Amino acid sequence: MAATPKTVLNNSWAAATQTFTAVLNPFLTAQVDADVAQQPLHDAMAYTLASGGKRLRPVLAFVISQLGSAALSAQDFLFPAGAIELIQTYSLIHDDLPAMDNDDLRRGKPSNHIQFGEAQAILAGDGLLTLAFSWLARAPFNTAVRIAMVQVLADAAGPAGMVAGQSQDMADTGEDITDTALHQLVANKTAQLITGAAEIGALAGQLTVSQRAAVRDFAWALGQAFQIRDDILDVIETTAELGKTAGKDAAEHKNTYVSFYGLAGARQQLQAALMAARAAWTPAVLASLGFAAIPAVLADLIQQLEE
Amino acid sequence: MAATPKTVLNNSWAAATQTFTAVLNPFLTAQVDADVAQQPLHDAMAYTLASGGKRLRPVLAFVISQLGSAALSAQDFLFPAGAIELIQTYSLIHDDLPAMDNDDLRRGKPSNHIQFGEAQAILAGDGLLTLAFSWLARAPFNTAVRIAMVQVLADAAGPAGMVAGQSQDMADTGEDITDTALHQLVANKTAQLITGAAEIGALAGQLTVSQRAAVRDFAWALGQAFQIRDDILDVIETTAELGKTAGKDAAEHKNTYVSFYGLAGARQQLQAALMAARAAWTPAVLASLGFAAIPAVLADLIQQLEE
Repeated sequence: MAATPKTVLNNSWAAATQTFTAVLNPFLTAQVDADVAQQPLHDAMAYTLASGGKRLRPVLAFVISQLGSAALSAQDFLFPAGAIELIQTYSLIHDDLPAMDNDDLRRGKPSNHIQFGEAQAILAGDGLLTLAFSWLARAPFNTAVRIAMVQVLADAAGPAGMVAGQSQDMADTGEDITDTALHQLVANKTAQLITGAAEIGALAGQLTVSQRAAVRDFAWALGQAFQIRDDILDVIETTAELGKTAGKDAAEHKNTYVSFYGLAGARQQLQAALMAARAAWTPAVLASLGFAAIPAVLADLIQQLEE
Repeated sequence: MAATPKTVLNNSWAAATQTFTAVLNPFLTAQVDADVAQQPLHDAMAYTLASGGKRLRPVLAFVISQLGSAALSAQDFLFPAGAIELIQTYSLIHDDLPAMDNDDLRRGKPSNHIQFGEAQAILAGDGLLTLAFSWLARAPFNTAVRIAMVQVLADAAGPAGMVAGQSQDMADTGEDITDTALHQLVANKTAQLITGAAEIGALAGQLTVSQRAAVRDFAWALGQAFQIRDDILDVIETTAELGKTAGKDAAEHKNTYVSFYGLAGARQQLQAALMAARAAWTPAVLASLGFAAIPAVLADLIQQLEE
């Protein structure tokens, strides 16, 4: 009774998430079982992977893959989507380490190093990160598409992308930084991987060059919005609501949109980012995709990020 | 005045290393400069990458790439060889972390986390690991060869390869293990990446299926020999000779060939592994490559591992 793929475009974000995670989540479990025999490593990798992530990035990638004219099933897209989620999961495990953000709690559960010890948590992160590229190599796409996906994911996640953001975050914590540096920090820490995920969807869906440019602009703005919202929630929500320790940013003198612009200023920046996300879908691009307006599922996602 | 590539096959291992590292080392520095703008991250990555590694794995890969009939310059092979060295370097940085082997010294210098702090060391490892796949994606080979290289490297380095070995090493330290478990530990920790490197050379050199099988068998035995020799040296050499803390294996109750078989037994195992490395080069395989005996450079490498 799964919806046919294209149906996801006309439904809510929650429906798209439900449709795709219904196949993605069992795949993640089964594939890690198949690929990782070493017991403590397997258990540590599987633990955070199955800890209730919202799967925003792989679902976004899947939705984008459905925009083009190519017929692409959820099944066809499991290896790329799974690879994206492996990267996201590794980054959370390493982020929570004592030497990094030192968080004992993740999604309301003990974080990986609390559960398995620091050594296995470091290795679980390394294992997830490396396995992501093995999964991309096995995806059912031609070799040119697969190698393009490898390039996109490695660059988005790597030392000119997400890892650069983490490094800057560590180096700049407690320091006064410029707004340019703050924007770059957020772009690298969060927007790069979200944009990479969307681009992988666009590669799978065989979007045109101008459609891919719109996808990039959209995802980039969405990534900014996502991080700004995260900064706001850290201030206004409780630990129970967040599923991770609340108020940590201020306690650790992190540079965030809230610390820089204040709560009201951060809310304005969030609105601006959401407006940019909508504006990426120009009438010309939408027409080329056969839509009169932003597809419902993407409009709903943008709406969800209204704080 | 660089030797023409095929010349490396008829010279010593030292000559091959000199020939190839003369182009590889400047490439590693320049390419990391080009790819990593974030300062603390760049510096931590570049530090261990330039800390005097012997480049065994990339040189082995290059030498293997020269066995086939394809004309392949050192220049052509820089991205794959560099990717292999990035993986090796990341593994050393993460290995030395306090939660892992906790070593303050690497190649006679302060290890990465001593120099840059734990957070930047974790991120430098993550950055090197991820960048390796970006480099493979950019290598000047057709997309089928590139994606095969991605598959080989991810599997050799990942949670069914090197990371599994590290995880087992951490979990089993201080425990009594079987000889089967010890052999698997060594295979994963060391032989997997050496074999992966050799396979990447074979892919670049367009070796035949049976030639590639011989390369695998050779590199697998070589990898065992390499780790057994490392276990022996840890016992018989000084910290100054090793460039890392001597006697650590015994102090930390590591499972090694020496702890399991004793020093004399480990030496026998080393000889057996070197014999297997030679035996991989059957007359039929050598003939198919146009050689009457094991190429001098490989015979010399095997000879070097005689303790």
